[in-house]
Amino acid sequence: VTAEPARAGIVDVARLAGVSVATVSRSLRGLPNVAASTRERVLNAAEELEYIASPLAAALVTGRTRSVGVVAAYAGRWFFAEVLRGMEEGLRDFGYDLVLHVLPEGERRQRFFVGLPVRRRVDALAVVGLELTRGELDSLRRLQIPIVCVAESLPGVHSERIDNAAAAGIATEHLLGLGHTRIAMIGASGGPGSVPAARARGFTAALADAGLTPAAVLDGDFTSRGAADALTRLLAGERSGASGRPTAVFCQSDEMAFGALYALGQAGLRCPQDMSVIGFDDHELAEMFGLSTVSQPVAEQGVAAARWLIGSLEGRGPDDAAGPVTVPSAADVPHSVRLVVRATTGPVGG
Amino acid sequence: VTAEPARAGIVDVARLAGVSVATVSRSLRGLPNVAASTRERVLNAAEELEYIASPLAAALVTGRTRSVGVVAAYAGRWFFAEVLRGMEEGLRDFGYDLVLHVLPEGERRQRFFVGLPVRRRVDALAVVGLELTRGELDSLRRLQIPIVCVAESLPGVHSERIDNAAAAGIATEHLLGLGHTRIAMIGASGGPGSVPAARARGFTAALADAGLTPAAVLDGDFTSRGAADALTRLLAGERSGASGRPTAVFCQSDEMAFGALYALGQAGLRCPQDMSVIGFDDHELAEMFGLSTVSQPVAEQGVAAARWLIGSLEGRGPDDAAGPVTVPSAADVPHSVRLVVRATTGPVGG
Repeated sequence: VTAEPARAGIVDVARLAGVSVATVSRSLRGLPNVAASTRERVLNAAEELEYIASPLAAALVTGRTRSVGVVAAYAGRWFFAEVLRGMEEGLRDFGYDLVLHVLPEGERRQRFFVGLPVRRRVDALAVVGLELTRGELDSLRRLQIPIVCVAESLPGVHSERIDNAAAAGIATEHLLGLGHTRIAMIGASGGPGSVPAARARGFTAALADAGLTPAAVLDGDFTSRGAADALTRLLAGERSGASGRPTAVFCQSDEMAFGALYALGQAGLRCPQDMSVIGFDDHELAEMFGLSTVSQPVAEQGVAAARWLIGSLEGRGPDDAAGPVTVPSAADVPHSVRLVVRATTGPVGG
Repeated sequence: VTAEPARAGIVDVARLAGVSVATVSRSLRGLPNVAASTRERVLNAAEELEYIASPLAAALVTGRTRSVGVVAAYAGRWFFAEVLRGMEEGLRDFGYDLVLHVLPEGERRQRFFVGLPVRRRVDALAVVGLELTRGELDSLRRLQIPIVCVAESLPGVHSERIDNAAAAGIATEHLLGLGHTRIAMIGASGGPGSVPAARARGFTAALADAGLTPAAVLDGDFTSRGAADALTRLLAGERSGASGRPTAVFCQSDEMAFGALYALGQAGLRCPQDMSVIGFDDHELAEMFGLSTVSQPVAEQGVAAARWLIGSLEGRGPDDAAGPVTVPSAADVPHSVRLVVRATTGPVGG
């Protein structure tokens, strides 16, 4: 290793530009709240002095990477893409990088929790829409960094999510209010604390309040195709007794509702005259399908999760930078949902 | 700075586990091609010796971060989410992190190119679906790292994309084959080398081959809402002379085609009897809309871009790690497209 010539430091840049070191740092990291003229002056000074900011060296000194890992079940689906968009925006405003880890089921997921490639590469973690096993969560906890979860809940982990049971109740009550009594649900499998389980609870509770039970409970696997197939099977099985057919169906996601609409069309049934369909999300295409639904703020949950993590990180004192962080227990954040009535729901018999 | 007690190194872990240093590295980074039993032995050895791999220290030594920056115009839209999914998968298989930068138009985009927050934080860059100005591209070039672009082309930059003009020609020829002669297009604005411009070229060339010109060219801004509004305006303006109305419309994306279908429904027109609609993409919901379209492999373009970058990075010798990398000039990669005929296209007059 040979000695390098003395290089200009951030203090030299600040002195030449006539601003504070913090302003140099903010300017070079592209953060807001620096006047364009000031940033220009800082960049000119940095160029003149051939100053090179080294995020790596800074990270070794501070123990911080200024990166946040996002661990998500999918990247291609609408909900996940929207959460990601919100998180990226929330993190970027504070100069943090978003490092994406997509964990489909199976071998890749196993490898992630064994190898933990986020170790020492991120300052904090967000878990989006993943149900974790006890062992998987324990693995993450051993990283001793702040963790937040979005959509799903994890024991002892701060969560940004909506009240799924209440939202499902709103959708169900809309159908009940239109006079429906034979109401089916298309959901998905999941553990007792999962999103599909919470939505199923809200659905059955609203029915129970009206003295009813579900007409059918189908598994659509949160995909259009899965929901279309499930409803097609139901309709085929019930051909013999059309009077027993559900007159309405609550779908736990808009994508599944799109599939239900497709299945109705294929079966020659009209919506809402033969069957009302309500979704959950207010997907960007819901309006194009005329879909009635319960809207939830999705990108906003991502932004909130990002802000919570940044609060945890920036709140740490320099003395305990390497120590464990106390994460508050799960709290219901009142992300608000609302009923959006369009063309796919109507009175019984249309 | 106080001296730390001697810590176990990777060589100690390899010796204790009875494997090579490379295998230890692969095991701890969660890479494939390590037997589960071997990985277990390595993790046990690492735990016993309290070995802590430091990606930061490794990055300072090698000058590599093992991260790739992805700069995208959007995160929430289907195409971008799918490319991201493919890139994440392609990078992860080689132990690279994906760092996401979403650059909407306006102030955030400006800040990115001035501050260049990717500097020294990533080994390579992928630009997804962004038209860059000369100045913006020059900024990225000064980073002296490999750059790839997806969907759009950039001068002198390797590109993973489809032949947009040819694909648009396939869609247009399908409509011509059904006997349509008054064919409109819903596209979007863009520079001469942009994706919408290439698709428009393919559309008008196919029409010209049949001795025709476009019946109308509308701007739908690549959104369902934009396309619905544009087609609604066209239909309203042409009420006086229905005989002059286009009998078919080529939409430059499926999301815009969904909007066109919505506008037709709102106007009381039937599809395909009154107007045929063909899209572009084969969006995951295209089947649910019965949409005829030209399918393109999207996640695959992301995978290919990731592989190309990794090839550039791993191909570099240790001596020129800090030097510029020669990036081959743009090449048309034959990502294949194909016509998918569903229910929204039919003969003139249905």
